[in-house]
Amino acid sequence: MNLKMVLYTTARIMQTEALFMLLPLAVSFIYGEYDSAQSFIITILTVFILGFIISRVTHTKNRVIYAKEGFAIVALAWLMMSFFGALPFVISRDIPSYVDAFFETVSGFTTTGASILNDVEAVSKGMLFWRSFTHWIGGMGVLVFVMAVIPNISDRSIHIMRAEMPGPVIGKLLPRAKDTAKILYLIYIVLTAAEILFLLAGGMSLFDSLIHSFGTAGTGGFGIKADSVSSYSPYIQWVITIFMIIFGINFNLFYLILIHRAKTAFKSSEFWWYIGIALSATAVIAFNIRGIYHNFSDTVRNSAFQVASILTTTGFATANFDTWPELSKTVLLLLMFIGGCAGSTAGGLKVSRVVLLFRTVKREINHLLHPRSVSAVRFEGKPADIKTVMSVCVYFVFYMLCFFTILLLLGFEPFSFETNFSATASCFNNVGPGLDGVGPMVSYSGYSPFSKIILSAAMLLGRLEIYPLILAFVPSTWNKR
Amino acid sequence: MNLKMVLYTTARIMQTEALFMLLPLAVSFIYGEYDSAQSFIITILTVFILGFIISRVTHTKNRVIYAKEGFAIVALAWLMMSFFGALPFVISRDIPSYVDAFFETVSGFTTTGASILNDVEAVSKGMLFWRSFTHWIGGMGVLVFVMAVIPNISDRSIHIMRAEMPGPVIGKLLPRAKDTAKILYLIYIVLTAAEILFLLAGGMSLFDSLIHSFGTAGTGGFGIKADSVSSYSPYIQWVITIFMIIFGINFNLFYLILIHRAKTAFKSSEFWWYIGIALSATAVIAFNIRGIYHNFSDTVRNSAFQVASILTTTGFATANFDTWPELSKTVLLLLMFIGGCAGSTAGGLKVSRVVLLFRTVKREINHLLHPRSVSAVRFEGKPADIKTVMSVCVYFVFYMLCFFTILLLLGFEPFSFETNFSATASCFNNVGPGLDGVGPMVSYSGYSPFSKIILSAAMLLGRLEIYPLILAFVPSTWNKR
Repeated sequence: MNLKMVLYTTARIMQTEALFMLLPLAVSFIYGEYDSAQSFIITILTVFILGFIISRVTHTKNRVIYAKEGFAIVALAWLMMSFFGALPFVISRDIPSYVDAFFETVSGFTTTGASILNDVEAVSKGMLFWRSFTHWIGGMGVLVFVMAVIPNISDRSIHIMRAEMPGPVIGKLLPRAKDTAKILYLIYIVLTAAEILFLLAGGMSLFDSLIHSFGTAGTGGFGIKADSVSSYSPYIQWVITIFMIIFGINFNLFYLILIHRAKTAFKSSEFWWYIGIALSATAVIAFNIRGIYHNFSDTVRNSAFQVASILTTTGFATANFDTWPELSKTVLLLLMFIGGCAGSTAGGLKVSRVVLLFRTVKREINHLLHPRSVSAVRFEGKPADIKTVMSVCVYFVFYMLCFFTILLLLGFEPFSFETNFSATASCFNNVGPGLDGVGPMVSYSGYSPFSKIILSAAMLLGRLEIYPLILAFVPSTWNKR
Repeated sequence: MNLKMVLYTTARIMQTEALFMLLPLAVSFIYGEYDSAQSFIITILTVFILGFIISRVTHTKNRVIYAKEGFAIVALAWLMMSFFGALPFVISRDIPSYVDAFFETVSGFTTTGASILNDVEAVSKGMLFWRSFTHWIGGMGVLVFVMAVIPNISDRSIHIMRAEMPGPVIGKLLPRAKDTAKILYLIYIVLTAAEILFLLAGGMSLFDSLIHSFGTAGTGGFGIKADSVSSYSPYIQWVITIFMIIFGINFNLFYLILIHRAKTAFKSSEFWWYIGIALSATAVIAFNIRGIYHNFSDTVRNSAFQVASILTTTGFATANFDTWPELSKTVLLLLMFIGGCAGSTAGGLKVSRVVLLFRTVKREINHLLHPRSVSAVRFEGKPADIKTVMSVCVYFVFYMLCFFTILLLLGFEPFSFETNFSATASCFNNVGPGLDGVGPMVSYSGYSPFSKIILSAAMLLGRLEIYPLILAFVPSTWNKR
């Protein structure tokens, strides 16, 4: 283990976080919120200086990092970011309890969007901005930024990306990881900017447009109103619906379109499954809730918005879907587990994994019928490597194991099974809202500090696709070579 | 597909079922229930004659059957047994609706124990006897009996057993399948007789002893009182607890003890995991419910009984665990998924599979830490074949897929998520009672006929370990060779 390099990289990431905080600091000044501004200044100075000291002490010429180091950096970075990112909320007393602030910040960086705030409209603008900005930073993965920021990291840094990028397929768009990172965040920025413009065009204020674009881009879902997106115009709601779907698509596709290979992009079977799932879920729910809304367009809009929001694991809401019929609620709950496409900012199992798991089962049935036939699981037009199939199956096993462990640990709460189950599903898949006690119009504030820490761990496990965080707690990871 | 042989075997199984019904017929006469007796006579004649005709028409010299035929026989036999086994309930009007009677009979043969009866104490003795007797028949697998009954089936009939026997490990105790079947049901009969004696010794009536021993042996759980086993003495409850645990053990172990190889038997790691899970769950729940009961022995007895009942997927109850705290309910719900040992009469995933899945995840973590190391998943003291590991993982994927599909299909009901989730878990794992709307003191009568059919399918899927039933509905299974 190249411990020095791990700490050095983490320190540089902390410094980057301090720089990011300059933006909410500016917002605080614009709105004349001097208490907020003060808490940002204190945090920025603390984090930057601490990062500076650590990076000096751990400076090393041996910059080679392997998978182990990659996992360790990712786990440590996300923990540190959340640990320090929570400070402004506590110092400004917008969220007086540190555990609450930590939960909120983890929820931000992991792009979950689960909140402990009971009255979000009472929070200062600067803090609301920082809260949503963590979504945007987290969305694409802090490390992708850092790789472009910190020069000269050996090309081995692709290992960090492997730990970071959601989904089983990591497309090495370009040979060098640094260049890949640059392309990815260029696409990310352009798409975010496009959403901001579309929202402004709908008459939304600049502040609200920024907040909702950050929440959409990172598939996070922190809102600034008690009723989430319900009170905005149908146009605004449709814009957000479409952008949620866009940010749930594998970013490789946008890259392929960028280099004029749209034909290849639209051959992606994951993409079509994703669109198919979204459309069929919308149809089922629209049919199921047809009695609740006055007309066809309201019904379809609400159904499409909620499906897009939950499938992409964003978590905005235009309706209190907790009051919808059981079938719609169950569909939404199952969508949480599927999640968006691999290589997007979404959480969940990812569509590609779900498709691969389906095909594996199909192959097994075939094999039982024709024991002597040899057939491979096909994916994206070619036969999938047996190792890939196996690792996806094992991932699923691990995933369900974590899920049930988290659910069990929430058992100490007096809440209903529906509350605990949906809270686990929602946090672990980085969605945000759940059902019943954690429904879209309620907060997570009722949970005990112990459960809040468990749910924070669930969010981190989900975002980092389990392994990095688990490996970071295996002692032998930290052994010297 | 040797269709003739499939139909022939099914017809012989139907005839066997008719013979089995002579016992409840006798019970009806003993208690002077002539309506019940009449309905048994009608059913016996119908089924026996129908079986006779079919077996004559399909008589064939080509008695060779392969995996395909094995799966088809198992699926068809279980469906036919349930289809005809439901008739007495309908004819006697103890259960007037055919769908309800079918649900109850599937629940019996699959050793689930989920009931639609709201007032079980009003049902005639003959019908109660038949209902519990289906547990006993189903428990060991109808086919195991049939193999000893129908002579001269080619040794290929081991394929039927492979489809029939629960769990991933099928111990070929003896080279010939027929001899294995004989040994297994000898052990089964002796253990059942032992339980009957122990219950009689505790002052239970012969009828009640038979009913409860059938329910325990098959890990079924149909009771004859509204409060299940609650009103019996602590001695009776402890006897049932211990026998539930015994019937959840792999029958190979009893065979090994029988041939004086107890040392080998107690080396089984599955056995120790099973005992370990039972003891730790009992401890956790006892601690969690300590405030509810007056003294230590009541607390431990109720905790141990419920844990044994749910882990072995029996489903008897001495307490309304639906009113227990959330942690205890969650523990019980998770135990449903684990189930008993492979090669026992229990349902669920089976302890051996769960242990194998755990170890597979552990190996994957190791592999990520030491990419160049080669390590196999060890099970029962030796490295497990990669094919076994893969097939267990794929089974788990298929299992969860079925689980979520069933849960989704129950979404049309107005019931709570807790009700639907626990009903799915309970029926699919062949347990019986669930939580909330299907708690241990409530029945499944509230579900619509559509949902009752879905839940019947769930019970069959769980009991037959998914594949046989799915394959029976794949058209190519029925193709001529």
